[in-house]
Amino acid sequence: MSKGNGETVVDVPAEKSSNPNTASTKGKGLAAGVATGAAVVGTTKVVKHLRGWKRIVCIFDFLLRLFGVAVLLTAAVTMGTSDQILPFFTHHFQFRATFQDLPALTFFVAANAIACGYLLLSLPFSLISIIRPSVVGARLLLLIADTVMLALTSTGAASAAAIVYLAHVGNRRANWIEICQQFNEFCQQTSGAVVASFAGVLIFIILVIMSALALRHH
Amino acid sequence: MSKGNGETVVDVPAEKSSNPNTASTKGKGLAAGVATGAAVVGTTKVVKHLRGWKRIVCIFDFLLRLFGVAVLLTAAVTMGTSDQILPFFTHHFQFRATFQDLPALTFFVAANAIACGYLLLSLPFSLISIIRPSVVGARLLLLIADTVMLALTSTGAASAAAIVYLAHVGNRRANWIEICQQFNEFCQQTSGAVVASFAGVLIFIILVIMSALALRHH
Repeated sequence: MSKGNGETVVDVPAEKSSNPNTASTKGKGLAAGVATGAAVVGTTKVVKHLRGWKRIVCIFDFLLRLFGVAVLLTAAVTMGTSDQILPFFTHHFQFRATFQDLPALTFFVAANAIACGYLLLSLPFSLISIIRPSVVGARLLLLIADTVMLALTSTGAASAAAIVYLAHVGNRRANWIEICQQFNEFCQQTSGAVVASFAGVLIFIILVIMSALALRHH
Repeated sequence: MSKGNGETVVDVPAEKSSNPNTASTKGKGLAAGVATGAAVVGTTKVVKHLRGWKRIVCIFDFLLRLFGVAVLLTAAVTMGTSDQILPFFTHHFQFRATFQDLPALTFFVAANAIACGYLLLSLPFSLISIIRPSVVGARLLLLIADTVMLALTSTGAASAAAIVYLAHVGNRRANWIEICQQFNEFCQQTSGAVVASFAGVLIFIILVIMSALALRHH
């Protein structure tokens, strides 16, 4: 827009200028009168303000992605290292609980690891948006991928939450006993991982909304 | 943009025009030569094309929301009516399975009902976007709300999926028996509801991406 205005003014003959003060203070391109000059300066200010605002959003986007990497890595590692062996063994086997015993928890680890890896890979694209806030492609690509990852992360977090909740309270109707009375440490660790993953879901929601806000002003 | 170009040409003195044919065919405002005239016509065509394209996206958005209402309502009602009573009763109680016995399935019904209600309420906003494709506010509002609803729907679908999967195959390590051998109809009905809900998740993903694409050209 500012370029377009500049070209507009260049086409106008110089003798139309009636106020020499305007020309001297606003530069050679603003010879079309005080009103046009003020409009151009105003537009330039708005564009600069928008660019500054957009840059701040992009920087916050980058920092949020870094924070997201930490949160999702914590979730995946916490769940991945959950392993409790009870100090007694009766019948024919040892009492041991790992995340691999429950498919929902295995899916949780995979989903969080994938989302964490994606966030790491998305950092360069976020950097491009900081350096060149007017590049729409990178922002749009991030928004689409973030939306898919939001679905993946929330699916992983929710399925693990359902199983961990069941492990805590059990279900009398289905005759599923609560296993957290025995595997206390295991349940605490997996619960922590689920909470961290839901924080990751929140981060993805904020990232999508921020990308949409940044796209709006393009 | 077309307005800006129009103003550009009006400021140029009429005696600069070297081709009278251009002035007669393109109108009084296009006196700056064939090149400028062609650029203005081209820009107008692009703007009209973009508006038409955006309107098609908005109409597809509306139809997808209607389809989403049907899908999510099916999911909620299918799960909400899942109730199986076995034809025998031993011990002290009747063998009966409803969605209310499992908290994850109750949450599933609530999440799908809320998302379905939201989609109904969003229809007027989608209509505004069809009538006035240049209104950014309605589109942005829909994108933000769609993102939150995507998280809600996928959370509901995944938690129910984890429990329904457990009901199907059980878990030997946690000593949770599969209940689908007895409650066959109940399991089939809840599985169908989960599949429908995941279709709803896919619809929300498409809605968010389409809103982002529509926002890009504003």
